Amino acid sequence: MRSEKIFEKIHDDRGTRARTGIVSLPHGTVKTPVFMPVGTSATVKAMSKDDLEEIGFEIILSNTYHLYLRPGTQVIGKAGGLHEWSNWRRNILTDSGGFQVFSLSPFRKISDAGVKFRSHIDGSYHMLTPEKIVEVQTILRSDVQMQLDVCTSWGTEYREADKALKITVDWLERAKKAWMEGPENYRGKLFGIVQGNFYKDLRERSVDELVRIDTPGIAIGGLSVGEPFEVFSEFLDHTSALLPAEKPRYVMGIGTPEYILRAIECGIDMFDCVFPTRIARNGMVFTHRGNLSLKREANTYDLGPLDPECSCKVCREYSRSYIRHLYKSSEILSAMLATYHNLYFLHRLVLDAREAIEQDRFAEFKSAFLGKYQEGSA
Amino acid sequence: MRSEKIFEKIHDDRGTRARTGIVSLPHGTVKTPVFMPVGTSATVKAMSKDDLEEIGFEIILSNTYHLYLRPGTQVIGKAGGLHEWSNWRRNILTDSGGFQVFSLSPFRKISDAGVKFRSHIDGSYHMLTPEKIVEVQTILRSDVQMQLDVCTSWGTEYREADKALKITVDWLERAKKAWMEGPENYRGKLFGIVQGNFYKDLRERSVDELVRIDTPGIAIGGLSVGEPFEVFSEFLDHTSALLPAEKPRYVMGIGTPEYILRAIECGIDMFDCVFPTRIARNGMVFTHRGNLSLKREANTYDLGPLDPECSCKVCREYSRSYIRHLYKSSEILSAMLATYHNLYFLHRLVLDAREAIEQDRFAEFKSAFLGKYQEGSA
Repeated sequence: MRSEKIFEKIHDDRGTRARTGIVSLPHGTVKTPVFMPVGTSATVKAMSKDDLEEIGFEIILSNTYHLYLRPGTQVIGKAGGLHEWSNWRRNILTDSGGFQVFSLSPFRKISDAGVKFRSHIDGSYHMLTPEKIVEVQTILRSDVQMQLDVCTSWGTEYREADKALKITVDWLERAKKAWMEGPENYRGKLFGIVQGNFYKDLRERSVDELVRIDTPGIAIGGLSVGEPFEVFSEFLDHTSALLPAEKPRYVMGIGTPEYILRAIECGIDMFDCVFPTRIARNGMVFTHRGNLSLKREANTYDLGPLDPECSCKVCREYSRSYIRHLYKSSEILSAMLATYHNLYFLHRLVLDAREAIEQDRFAEFKSAFLGKYQEGSA
Repeated sequence: MRSEKIFEKIHDDRGTRARTGIVSLPHGTVKTPVFMPVGTSATVKAMSKDDLEEIGFEIILSNTYHLYLRPGTQVIGKAGGLHEWSNWRRNILTDSGGFQVFSLSPFRKISDAGVKFRSHIDGSYHMLTPEKIVEVQTILRSDVQMQLDVCTSWGTEYREADKALKITVDWLERAKKAWMEGPENYRGKLFGIVQGNFYKDLRERSVDELVRIDTPGIAIGGLSVGEPFEVFSEFLDHTSALLPAEKPRYVMGIGTPEYILRAIECGIDMFDCVFPTRIARNGMVFTHRGNLSLKREANTYDLGPLDPECSCKVCREYSRSYIRHLYKSSEILSAMLATYHNLYFLHRLVLDAREAIEQDRFAEFKSAFLGKYQEGSA
């Protein structure tokens, strides 16, 4: 039951490795490919759960590291988990927080046992182990939980990347054991994470170990960590080709049209990123003709929508002129409207990609979309 | 046509001067008494227009001073006015900005002609006259526009208050002339403002002049400017008793349950304040048992609603624990939810007051409401 198959493939694109499918999770099915908005602290910034449902999202992310530190598992546990507490009733994937320990903590020390670190909020010391991370995510009632891993950056030497991978594999064995022994009434799924930095033999070994250990889904970590797009693209292609077809494949931390379409082309089913929501708060929005900065003077008198080719509520009801004014005046509604639009835009992109795959024309779709998008961005 | 009667009285409470009525404005009727949320820069902070409509508001405020400085009348004029530009399709009352010139500008100089001041945004110099303020509000297509006035604070000496009043009366004559001569297709209504500081003879003279000059509605200004509640209460009572029954009466800048109920008791029909939205962003919410600070540790584990006696969307769907977390994490959703609740709360209070008036039991209603509210606040 715990290890049941959760991915059903619907269609393989004829010309690429792109595919559509359905992931079955405790809070409903998720059609793939899927972009998952990030709600780090149990809220997708500037969005209500109703907004997210209205757009059509079936799964969002949250972050174990952040929620463990604030408000802590006692609070969310008392509420009965993240869904009860935040009142988002669809699926939640929680990132393990491995990446955040590396990027946010003022101090961290990795040992075979786990990772010791200081909170970026109050400086307090904490020790997280693979088992503890499973326990925390079980309290959160995550629909998909991620293993604790060691993420290395672009430019890491082979020896270090090898060592990080060994620990990551060992931690997955321990995470899986803890997860298998978890409470009966918890039905969330554990995903292992491929590491191995930018060394193909390490990536291959990582996939072999993941297949051996066997988790319901597999994530590719350690990409989009500072490397050029070509390197990302090559390693994504190489790694994803190694993955078993019968499991959902998730690439962590990508959220631009170029990266998303490349991931779909390589057969990736799931992806997430703070990018669309973060740039929205900084006055930048996606359009079919490239990204638009609300800071640009030219928008002052522009009574047209953010994106004339978008049919979202914001594009139907507000002008660039008004939203630029909100942005320049530091009004919260600016973040609300720009975030809504950016998430709708990526959701729509993924819906269109699904349709293209099912009609065996993904390569054309991608090239047509990016042709227009990149021309406008230039 | 321009000076047509806009207020229809529905019912006078038997025990107090409270009354219900309907104000007819270009963007629909407004049932009174009414609390009007403030959207200074053409947005009620942290609310969408859909939120405001959902709660049931029929009129909101915006501020001429702010919009004149940013984005400027050229932008809003090009869009066809505030309604077209912001897409709020119900009524908008614009404050003249007199108060903001006094409270926000780093420099101001009043002459008989008008007021010269420096922008708090970019330091630029501007001159606003009573005629100019009418012109600006006409470009904004305000449903109710306010005259430019000279607002004095608590503690102003008689001579100065007298002088300020004389200028205010002169400016109203000029404003009315400009408004009467405005474009045919603009149907917004001009309100004069009672001044006179805390001198009863000046208040009386101010009302006499307003009645003589004759505007569709009358506002009481220069209250809630630093004086104790008892003084506010006494002067409100004194001034409102002088006002003609056939015009809508508006008290500017009040937004707590105590002040609102007192104003209704004195026969006031309209009021506005940034208070409910501002405290919401600072983690403070209204409840029937007094105000609640989300900062309080006690809310950490409290899975109950903000106000168990409130039936708003926020109280139905979220807990104190979750909203406190959002507030502590500086999440935008905290401002969104707390603002929605506070505005719903005041809207509900006013609806309940209307019902009580129509059943001739306003005094009882007020005393029952405040009994509970103030006991909880203590």
